[in-house]
Amino acid sequence: MSDFKTFLAEVRPSIDAALDRLLPAASQSPQRLHEAMRYAVFAGGKRIRPALVLLTGARLGLGHEMLLAGGSALEMIHTYSLVHDDLPALDNDDLRRGRPTLHRRYDEATAILAGDALLTLGLSTLATHPPTATAEQRRRAVELVGEAIGSRGMIGGQVDDLAAEAEWPDDAAAALEAIHRRKTGELLTASVRLAGIYAGSSAAEDELLTELGALLGLMFQIGDDILDVVGTSGTLGKTAGKDAAARKLTYPGLYGLEESKRLLGETHDQAQALAARLPGKGPAAAERAGEASDRVGLFLSLIHYLSTRDH
Amino acid sequence: MSDFKTFLAEVRPSIDAALDRLLPAASQSPQRLHEAMRYAVFAGGKRIRPALVLLTGARLGLGHEMLLAGGSALEMIHTYSLVHDDLPALDNDDLRRGRPTLHRRYDEATAILAGDALLTLGLSTLATHPPTATAEQRRRAVELVGEAIGSRGMIGGQVDDLAAEAEWPDDAAAALEAIHRRKTGELLTASVRLAGIYAGSSAAEDELLTELGALLGLMFQIGDDILDVVGTSGTLGKTAGKDAAARKLTYPGLYGLEESKRLLGETHDQAQALAARLPGKGPAAAERAGEASDRVGLFLSLIHYLSTRDH
Repeated sequence: MSDFKTFLAEVRPSIDAALDRLLPAASQSPQRLHEAMRYAVFAGGKRIRPALVLLTGARLGLGHEMLLAGGSALEMIHTYSLVHDDLPALDNDDLRRGRPTLHRRYDEATAILAGDALLTLGLSTLATHPPTATAEQRRRAVELVGEAIGSRGMIGGQVDDLAAEAEWPDDAAAALEAIHRRKTGELLTASVRLAGIYAGSSAAEDELLTELGALLGLMFQIGDDILDVVGTSGTLGKTAGKDAAARKLTYPGLYGLEESKRLLGETHDQAQALAARLPGKGPAAAERAGEASDRVGLFLSLIHYLSTRDH
Repeated sequence: MSDFKTFLAEVRPSIDAALDRLLPAASQSPQRLHEAMRYAVFAGGKRIRPALVLLTGARLGLGHEMLLAGGSALEMIHTYSLVHDDLPALDNDDLRRGRPTLHRRYDEATAILAGDALLTLGLSTLATHPPTATAEQRRRAVELVGEAIGSRGMIGGQVDDLAAEAEWPDDAAAALEAIHRRKTGELLTASVRLAGIYAGSSAAEDELLTELGALLGLMFQIGDDILDVVGTSGTLGKTAGKDAAARKLTYPGLYGLEESKRLLGETHDQAQALAARLPGKGPAAAERAGEASDRVGLFLSLIHYLSTRDH
């Protein structure tokens, strides 16, 4: 089992079960808000961030049980960012994963507040889970993710992305890199580093995870930009060709499609080289050398997946 | 110095200095976002929540230095809730504290994202500060505040408030109480309980603080509703008479003005009785009995302030 798509399919039920446990029941008051939160979270997202936490944690010797809540917290935060990005005042998207966006299905006020509630629950879940982690690990998880998604991280990337739509900045190449490093890369990087926190990684390991996370984020975003050009609304589950129509600052928009594909391949090779250096760790790694090398295979497959995915 | 207004004036500069230290500089990228966050935070708010943290903490034997970051975090979170509540899709307010609301001064996208960033920074500040608190105290602070402001707390209150505007619920009295307990009361309660966490309060003390916080929240909200009827836009710094115009579920709207004032007085007496039972604690309290009794006086003055304030 060294294929990332198979891994995603295998872990998905336990990720969804964890999300179901952590989110308030739709029958709880205020019902409409809780329904809306669940509508957004259970909308067919690929669960790449929780899967990254599970995959990295496994590589570092941790079982899935310790990682599911943290992974779910990142998925809630990812979902909040999509809900707010889709709002009329921001990207004004009607379609997300093939269904009406939250503000189209409910209303704008509910979408704003459901996003707020998902962000709040995501950060506080990191403070409360997993119970087997130390207080310092849980405190540090909130710090790590808070930095990644704050005004100098994910939100900052979104702000600059919106600004670049109005007018491309002078140094467009540097701006493009800076936008995506924060808008997508920071949370993906936090996903692999979060596993490192739970595993008690050293500073050197954390540095390696940070570098790897940044490359994964870059691959993810170049891939996303390419898909907006070559994909169809049907396979994407969202409106295709929107970037070009909005004159958004993207890789294909700036470098052209072929050069973007070449950049993606180059990043793929860098990530692959880095992943091979990830240390196997803990008794599990020593005892189960076969599985450990399998997890390197999974990382390579993940990297391949990110560079070839079609939605 | 046992007058709460004097206390507010005295502690305000150190609260504002702490907020200034904790918020990203307006010169940092993305500048427009950081300017917007500061515009909202430095808009002449009364700083009641940080003052409550300082006042309660002092009563429990803690110096201000340990409490300023936590108090500032609550002020950021309070500010985020105002920024999002003012949005066109929610309360659609043009004026806040005598100035244009954030989305009127900047734009809607900036207001949504600046609110998100203030919420994120508020929660993560609780995880990182104060450095003198234990990891468990900081972790517990995120948990406490996350619960208070989540979908079952502050956000839930806001959702039900909006719903009640469209149609008053069957049991309007119970709904009114439930809305305000969550919309305003939870964060005020968290303010006094946060001080308890840093002071290492016992479960019994925490229970007393929780009860007191709930009464303070109730007084605050009844007072707010009364002010919307008897105040003017000039003294309030926001549009007066908006509640009645929007047929909002309020205390004067449901009970009439005189009965609302009587309820406020009744709550005042309950809070006063409870505040007198607050234990002085730690060496500071024993050694400085004079100051400790002064702090009881301050609590009584706070309670008086909440029941007689004019803006």
